[in-house]
Amino acid sequence: MSSDGTDVRVDYTRVFTQAIDRLHAEGRYRVFIDILRNKGMFPNARCFAGHNGPKPITVWCSNDYLAMGQHPKVIEAMEEALHDVGAGSGGTRNIGGNTHYHIDLEHELADLHGKQSALLFTSGYVSNEATLSTLAKILPGCVIFSDELNHASMIAGIRNAGCEKRIFRHNDLAHLEELLAAEDPAVPKLIAFESVYSMEADVAPIAAICDLADRYNALTYLDEVHAVGMYGERGGGISEQEGVAHRLTIIEGTLGKAFGVMGGYIAADQTIVDVIRSYAPGFIFTTSLSPVLVAGVLASVRHLKSSSVEREGQQASATLLKSMLNDAGLPVMLGDTHIVPILVGDPVKAKRISDILLAEYGVYVQPINYPTVPRGTERLRFTPGPSHTPAMMRELTDALVEIWSRLELRKAA
Amino acid sequence: MSSDGTDVRVDYTRVFTQAIDRLHAEGRYRVFIDILRNKGMFPNARCFAGHNGPKPITVWCSNDYLAMGQHPKVIEAMEEALHDVGAGSGGTRNIGGNTHYHIDLEHELADLHGKQSALLFTSGYVSNEATLSTLAKILPGCVIFSDELNHASMIAGIRNAGCEKRIFRHNDLAHLEELLAAEDPAVPKLIAFESVYSMEADVAPIAAICDLADRYNALTYLDEVHAVGMYGERGGGISEQEGVAHRLTIIEGTLGKAFGVMGGYIAADQTIVDVIRSYAPGFIFTTSLSPVLVAGVLASVRHLKSSSVEREGQQASATLLKSMLNDAGLPVMLGDTHIVPILVGDPVKAKRISDILLAEYGVYVQPINYPTVPRGTERLRFTPGPSHTPAMMRELTDALVEIWSRLELRKAA
Repeated sequence: MSSDGTDVRVDYTRVFTQAIDRLHAEGRYRVFIDILRNKGMFPNARCFAGHNGPKPITVWCSNDYLAMGQHPKVIEAMEEALHDVGAGSGGTRNIGGNTHYHIDLEHELADLHGKQSALLFTSGYVSNEATLSTLAKILPGCVIFSDELNHASMIAGIRNAGCEKRIFRHNDLAHLEELLAAEDPAVPKLIAFESVYSMEADVAPIAAICDLADRYNALTYLDEVHAVGMYGERGGGISEQEGVAHRLTIIEGTLGKAFGVMGGYIAADQTIVDVIRSYAPGFIFTTSLSPVLVAGVLASVRHLKSSSVEREGQQASATLLKSMLNDAGLPVMLGDTHIVPILVGDPVKAKRISDILLAEYGVYVQPINYPTVPRGTERLRFTPGPSHTPAMMRELTDALVEIWSRLELRKAA
Repeated sequence: MSSDGTDVRVDYTRVFTQAIDRLHAEGRYRVFIDILRNKGMFPNARCFAGHNGPKPITVWCSNDYLAMGQHPKVIEAMEEALHDVGAGSGGTRNIGGNTHYHIDLEHELADLHGKQSALLFTSGYVSNEATLSTLAKILPGCVIFSDELNHASMIAGIRNAGCEKRIFRHNDLAHLEELLAAEDPAVPKLIAFESVYSMEADVAPIAAICDLADRYNALTYLDEVHAVGMYGERGGGISEQEGVAHRLTIIEGTLGKAFGVMGGYIAADQTIVDVIRSYAPGFIFTTSLSPVLVAGVLASVRHLKSSSVEREGQQASATLLKSMLNDAGLPVMLGDTHIVPILVGDPVKAKRISDILLAEYGVYVQPINYPTVPRGTERLRFTPGPSHTPAMMRELTDALVEIWSRLELRKAA
């Protein structure tokens, strides 16, 4: 009680309830769809929500882009590790949790990107957060130049670094150069960007950004999470495809999307990897990846280094789906990548379309809303892979056309 | 070049090399020991470093405290999930990565702590970082009261929250109360602390801290990562053992230590869990835990809810080892927990002892140095479990006595 007898104490429940109410009011409260995939039959899965017993669905929004999470080599490697060494690593990398699998995978990933070293993290999110925040702390006075559409994990790393940052307009070289030129030449600089922007389906001008980095003596940090495994002769990402991997200071990737398992990593020269290994709290103070996961990733990375069937199948599926949707007059965002977004522009409508697709058509695609994309650009995001058949695409397109008509949605211009 | 012709550009390689040189100079450059555990024979393992072929060792520093990472039920559950649904989840919890396993495990963990809800994270580190930083942002003007020996992940969460913080002396109730009393009653408050401090081997006065929280209208956040699975009738941690779980706002735990696999979680009332689920970037923007891991944890948590054999075995081993080391005059830090630290107080000596143990005795224990513990308190930290035999303890004690004598180290007072 305050001196005048009123209760000034915080009502925590009210604050928390209001935070949730705001999400409902904006139509962006998230309901997680309860599913189980059927191994060997991807993109088929079972959905448990709102039904009596599981209902079969087709998954259209998985980031297991090449279905490697179901690949026999991956499953076999994980089973072998499970029986050889057990479930978890039992410790941090420094204290008991450094297995032979981890070391082998780091060599494999360094080789994938033509770098001296690589370092594993428990996720791609942690790789970005830990590496960017640590780099900036090691380089006093560092300024980070960040693409405005960079992923939340990069934004977290930059914010947690506590350093100066400059946001450049998405893929805008002139704006980036303007910002670089405005800084003192004696100040350490780092340009942080992605190769494939997963919500836009477009690709950064990597070589031109490296030219700017050379001119202004900046380090470069490239997030390739939506490209590793899927682009380049050996799956080294867009930087391999364009022959520029050697020009990048740090390449970051994930083990949870095209490689089909879980985890993240960076690849760079030996000294930089050693610095991050030695100074990043997000790397040091956490139980290392389960050796079972690491064994699975090893098999996946090795397979995709020599097999292009999955990559070609994915590109063929993406091309076919984009042309079907476009021909049907749906507002598909056309890009050069494997990602197929359809713009809706409203969180409530995006959720409504998704709900109808699941309930009436057995099609699972999640609505993408703020904060994953800017408000007003809410969308559906399809990720066709090598296992999505032309018949599935036909059904999907017909379903969308029917729903677009039913809800009187805007068609393509 | 600057106007006078000198090169002012940053020499990045030099900065990075100097950062590594500092670690060498302080004797705390970390070398990871390359090992593989032998499933079914824990604490036996194989060491790959500095030998021709793997050499058998005994692991004394694993956080797989109860050897659940090798338990047949855990292995079987993981194998089944691997064959039923595949390797990875393929997405974030919101976008394709929410499996039935995740939902079941969250129910199981909520029940373990007598809370309404639970939420999974990719690691205990991420649980702490994401929850603390998000809570403080949801509660405008929040002040966090943090024990000075809190884990790096809690410190990261508090720092990244950008809120005011007050550090209280380790387990010091009078100091905590002094700090609480000094704040405006209208300000939101959160007390963040651990139950078992893993490097000190001591336990927080949880009930007394809850009393203070009641008195000053503060929320409480308890990290039980070194206690879940190991204390309480059903493995609910120290808070279960002391009957105070219902008094805590949030209980945080790990799935990578006593439960033997990987991942982290919080348990709390439904509204708080929903707030974190909806607002924490470290939860939202990351691929969810592999269903294979989640299946293994489910089996582990369920087993330890009904079986006390592992807990009793661990306590017996810890008691026996402490008395053997103490009787031998070694400077063991005596506490009420399962953790057995021996103080060395110097990073170079701690590493030297560890190196001799590994090379000459086949004993693997990692030296613990700064930043994991404060400088000058470097130590060896042993984690005896139910599978460490009295004979192994005898060998360890004899080895330490010989090394203490050889290096002329300080014995216990």
